[in-house]
Amino acid sequence: VTTLATTNKDPIGVAVVGAGYWGPNLVRNFQNNSGFQLHWLCDLDVERATRVVGRYSSVRPTADLGEVLADDRVHAVAVATPAGTHLEVALAALEAGKHVLVEKPLAASYAEGRRLVEEADRRGLTLMCDHTFCYTPVVTRLRELLHSGEVGELQYIDSVRINLGLVQRDIDVVWDLAPHDLSILDYVLPPNVRPVSVAAVGTDPIGAGRSCIAYLTLALSNGAIAHVHVNWLSPIKVRTVIIGGSKRTVVWDDVNPMLRLAIFDRGVDVATKDELGDQERRELLISYRSGDMVAPALGEREALAAMVEEFGRAIRTGTPPLTDGRAGLRVLGILEAASRSLAQGGATVPLTDMA
Amino acid sequence: VTTLATTNKDPIGVAVVGAGYWGPNLVRNFQNNSGFQLHWLCDLDVERATRVVGRYSSVRPTADLGEVLADDRVHAVAVATPAGTHLEVALAALEAGKHVLVEKPLAASYAEGRRLVEEADRRGLTLMCDHTFCYTPVVTRLRELLHSGEVGELQYIDSVRINLGLVQRDIDVVWDLAPHDLSILDYVLPPNVRPVSVAAVGTDPIGAGRSCIAYLTLALSNGAIAHVHVNWLSPIKVRTVIIGGSKRTVVWDDVNPMLRLAIFDRGVDVATKDELGDQERRELLISYRSGDMVAPALGEREALAAMVEEFGRAIRTGTPPLTDGRAGLRVLGILEAASRSLAQGGATVPLTDMA
Amino acid sequence: VTTLATTNKDPIGVAVVGAGYWGPNLVRNFQNNSGFQLHWLCDLDVERATRVVGRYSSVRPTADLGEVLADDRVHAVAVATPAGTHLEVALAALEAGKHVLVEKPLAASYAEGRRLVEEADRRGLTLMCDHTFCYTPVVTRLRELLHSGEVGELQYIDSVRINLGLVQRDIDVVWDLAPHDLSILDYVLPPNVRPVSVAAVGTDPIGAGRSCIAYLTLALSNGAIAHVHVNWLSPIKVRTVIIGGSKRTVVWDDVNPMLRLAIFDRGVDVATKDELGDQERRELLISYRSGDMVAPALGEREALAAMVEEFGRAIRTGTPPLTDGRAGLRVLGILEAASRSLAQGGATVPLTDMA
Amino acid sequence: VTTLATTNKDPIGVAVVGAGYWGPNLVRNFQNNSGFQLHWLCDLDVERATRVVGRYSSVRPTADLGEVLADDRVHAVAVATPAGTHLEVALAALEAGKHVLVEKPLAASYAEGRRLVEEADRRGLTLMCDHTFCYTPVVTRLRELLHSGEVGELQYIDSVRINLGLVQRDIDVVWDLAPHDLSILDYVLPPNVRPVSVAAVGTDPIGAGRSCIAYLTLALSNGAIAHVHVNWLSPIKVRTVIIGGSKRTVVWDDVNPMLRLAIFDRGVDVATKDELGDQERRELLISYRSGDMVAPALGEREALAAMVEEFGRAIRTGTPPLTDGRAGLRVLGILEAASRSLAQGGATVPLTDMA
Repeated sequence: VTTLATTNKDPIGVAVVGAGYWGPNLVRNFQNNSGFQLHWLCDLDVERATRVVGRYSSVRPTADLGEVLADDRVHAVAVATPAGTHLEVALAALEAGKHVLVEKPLAASYAEGRRLVEEADRRGLTLMCDHTFCYTPVVTRLRELLHSGEVGELQYIDSVRINLGLVQRDIDVVWDLAPHDLSILDYVLPPNVRPVSVAAVGTDPIGAGRSCIAYLTLALSNGAIAHVHVNWLSPIKVRTVIIGGSKRTVVWDDVNPMLRLAIFDRGVDVATKDELGDQERRELLISYRSGDMVAPALGEREALAAMVEEFGRAIRTGTPPLTDGRAGLRVLGILEAASRSLAQGGATVPLTDMA
Repeated sequence: VTTLATTNKDPIGVAVVGAGYWGPNLVRNFQNNSGFQLHWLCDLDVERATRVVGRYSSVRPTADLGEVLADDRVHAVAVATPAGTHLEVALAALEAGKHVLVEKPLAASYAEGRRLVEEADRRGLTLMCDHTFCYTPVVTRLRELLHSGEVGELQYIDSVRINLGLVQRDIDVVWDLAPHDLSILDYVLPPNVRPVSVAAVGTDPIGAGRSCIAYLTLALSNGAIAHVHVNWLSPIKVRTVIIGGSKRTVVWDDVNPMLRLAIFDRGVDVATKDELGDQERRELLISYRSGDMVAPALGEREALAAMVEEFGRAIRTGTPPLTDGRAGLRVLGILEAASRSLAQGGATVPLTDMA
Repeated sequence: VTTLATTNKDPIGVAVVGAGYWGPNLVRNFQNNSGFQLHWLCDLDVERATRVVGRYSSVRPTADLGEVLADDRVHAVAVATPAGTHLEVALAALEAGKHVLVEKPLAASYAEGRRLVEEADRRGLTLMCDHTFCYTPVVTRLRELLHSGEVGELQYIDSVRINLGLVQRDIDVVWDLAPHDLSILDYVLPPNVRPVSVAAVGTDPIGAGRSCIAYLTLALSNGAIAHVHVNWLSPIKVRTVIIGGSKRTVVWDDVNPMLRLAIFDRGVDVATKDELGDQERRELLISYRSGDMVAPALGEREALAAMVEEFGRAIRTGTPPLTDGRAGLRVLGILEAASRSLAQGGATVPLTDMA
Repeated sequence: VTTLATTNKDPIGVAVVGAGYWGPNLVRNFQNNSGFQLHWLCDLDVERATRVVGRYSSVRPTADLGEVLADDRVHAVAVATPAGTHLEVALAALEAGKHVLVEKPLAASYAEGRRLVEEADRRGLTLMCDHTFCYTPVVTRLRELLHSGEVGELQYIDSVRINLGLVQRDIDVVWDLAPHDLSILDYVLPPNVRPVSVAAVGTDPIGAGRSCIAYLTLALSNGAIAHVHVNWLSPIKVRTVIIGGSKRTVVWDDVNPMLRLAIFDRGVDVATKDELGDQERRELLISYRSGDMVAPALGEREALAAMVEEFGRAIRTGTPPLTDGRAGLRVLGILEAASRSLAQGGATVPLTDMA
């Protein structure tokens, strides 16, 4: 079993497992981070791994996970395989004493995810979920805006993530795309606000065998709602999140680099019951704010680079990463409830039993 | 009781009732249409009516509906009062033998709307609902695209209509905004496809006493779904309808005059079961179309002018207008079901009992 | 000759001359302004005037300008005829003692425009040029931003005004469209900055007999430049003005109602010579600002309504309107110099002889 | 001196010189192209080269160009150093018998560029200029549209390339940005149309010591004009090229991935003189087309990958690359003429003496 002295300034030895869509991005970012030393890229299809590594690299491709886990230079493993294999791969890595980073979703079920969290806890190892969007400058700012109270009381969240996307073979559009929206939600919600139930409807108009379009409605503990639209079939790409608050409303349009984040001092105010006597007078006191919009300057940091940096920080300090296994588990809880709701035609499913 | 010879080439005498938000638009368009002669603008607030008519016009303002209905020169009445008064005003007009145009929604309830339809039927009078959007060049084209089969089999409709809007005092956001989406849906759906159920969730985060944000999900008879997002609180104005079909997907962005309607030859195709043996092979045969986009040239006709023209045509020919009372009634049926669903926390409400 | 007591609270009697493209807008706005009483709409084509007035109005159409000018109730005349007739019509109105509003450009030449200014001066009558854009909330704000020093020292102005426009029969694209840009420039420039020369190139690729596309470059007295692109042949509509200053840069995108005016705290700073010793060090001290963008809330006032209001204010107070005859004359001076430059293949023409 | 058998299927040995802004992109693309074997990355600042190569690569960093040129495995050299050093580095490479790829602009002057072209000709070596944009799917399509006659007769080109850009220390904005526009122009113009003169104005409002904003106007041999706006100081990024033709007008908006290329059937037609008798009748026969817009599907090929592929093809076949030294030289001719025009305050400079 590998042990890692936290004061050690030497690079953290790392291996990437999975050379498909996401793995090459991890390879590139671990190579660019001086706090890591990438040793292996592991994939059942070793030719694919070889192609990804390229002719110039000293990183070794392999199809043998055992070889990787047996390498004492390897302190950490990043898992970018299909969701159905996360448990097996990540568990083996934890059992070999490696810190683990897992691509979203953390696992194929809440039970599997919990098993990983428990195993990491037992062994005192870092377990991190690659909720990449949480490391973008925009989401960092959204969290600040919501946690600081700058937007006021949270009123609603509307998130649209649609595109002509790859129809996945093992998971539906909810498990493929909604982890982004749900992990962002988990990250930015103020500490006292949590999702309490979810209802989901979906449709499979092309006969793919799973939902290709879905709508999720989450009730939040403060009475606000969050709505998520995910869609693999849209010819246009829309990635817009609107966060309404009592003081400000924020619009994040991720496909508009010229105006990615806009903070509006526009909204509707209603004088509170305390100030007024009755229904009649209240109705007279609706007022409209129509103030300025501010688009704050944001850094240009690549999210994945920041995520890799945070993985390193968590390993070295022994403290949980910003998007730790528990965050991944909370997302799994919502996904599973959404699947139950989908199967029941949109019934509202409570989230009371979540971690 | 007024009678109108359908071969008569003389202008149709008309009165507008209601000088609030929409009435002035009707006044202007009746004045600009040579097939009509506008005689009256009636409003309980006669000063408001006087202001709207202006200092230059021969149109007479009045607060007395009886005076208007007693005028034999008046063959038709356009009702632009609050929804709660539609039954009373329109019924009085029908009983006075006038043809009637009613602003959406047709009435405050399905029962009230049915009463108007029946009364107009009994008297052989034209009853028309001002579903203005149905007379835009875009919606006319959408109907052609769906009825002709050019988009293939309808797969889904997603409609977003959000803005910083007036918080109405008598109706919620569903009754205020969704009539637009539902009347468009009613107008463009191919003849063999009908809504069969609706589920709705809403929220009132500002304490207005009624839903300010709502999401409607309609199941259609061919298995497709239609989803509607209406919102009074959004700082940005979005009016986008995506209509997915098996051959083409159409995107209508009403706030983008440079690209209002786009027809995409982009999508996902799955080989049908007949062509394939089993699940495994089917999954291999997902294919992606990535063809051209065409933005068809559209005329610049003002929708309200075309609506007024259609009202005249229907009166003169004695044939139903494109958006007749029954269309208005079908929309009311969905609105009422949506309200029931809202009250039940989003339960699915069937539409089987609709006209 | 009409005289108007400035303390008089009665409406100012007014006539509009010209019922073509712009006249109807003036008719509508004079009718909506309680400070005016519109009596006449005059056009050589009396049927056109009759159509514009409509069947309901008490405004009288006529083809006889003499009849209008002889009417003592008429204190003011608004001229919306082709530019080539402005001198004749406006001069007759001034000679009849009427205050005069003239559509842009003020006249067909600088000499003609000067004649109007002199005649109005001699008679103590208001002469106003309808530089409509100067009455928009955006341009009002631009003037404030530049006059207050908020944008810092003016560095450059780039104005693009292109569209598929009507190819005029009497004037080229410079005289048709650039009056907008030049009148805006005249209005917003800080008092100490004036255009000192202009160079213009144009092209007539369709054989229309006059330039359909043109580029103007103006040198300003503080060393900045202003560039104007006008084009009748563009399939897309672009109306963007960028105003670069040493502290802020402002972008006005008139076809984007969601973000019409944006104030950027972005730019390049170079340490001044005083602070540094030599070329080498200066080059090292280029720095980049990348601050927030603010889109200020703007009112929704219709520009033409504000213009008409200002015409009334000027008449009643006897003080010059914001866009008086002299402003119109300054624009004519640049237009004429631009025409000379066009004829000389783009040579720089000084503006030293301007009023 | 290296010789390369054109039938050889072995990878072409290559070295990159310059590890600044552009060099790393070349490194990455040569590594990804199986037709090349990258051996060296050379930079005077060897630490920078080492950083770019990274800890994992077998590519060798060096500060010694002589070492690179003496390596017989190196058949080709890609030069991505500052423009002022292109002659020295590229000439040394050619004299060492290497094929050469040079970043734009080809050299610091027309004379220097010609020297490179002549040297490559004399030695029978490939000399290519990295006009990257010419290898984008959009520009490939633009060339087809113009060469095939699909857009009809070319009427005008308007190119805007503005951004908050790096203020270069050795070259002005014309030499920094306009090579993109001019190389695209060179590539897409139909064979019978060539630039015949250029006029340029510029300004340096920040005291950078060189023009930061410039406007170029090129007269083309068929009477059309091309206008280029380049600007380092704009807070917004605009990269729009409009190409007007007698049959179609094409708009390329490079910052809008949803609608990068749009082909408009919109425009103005004037009946020709042959069809008509005189000026009066001609003016009556202006007509407006207002047809559909088509956004053609374009591939997603990375331009730099295609450029590298073309470099390989040219070397192996001994035929000129699409953007050969002569293309680079033609661009230099226009740049030099533009600089002369700038120095003369915008005078028109003929291009008659160009290669």
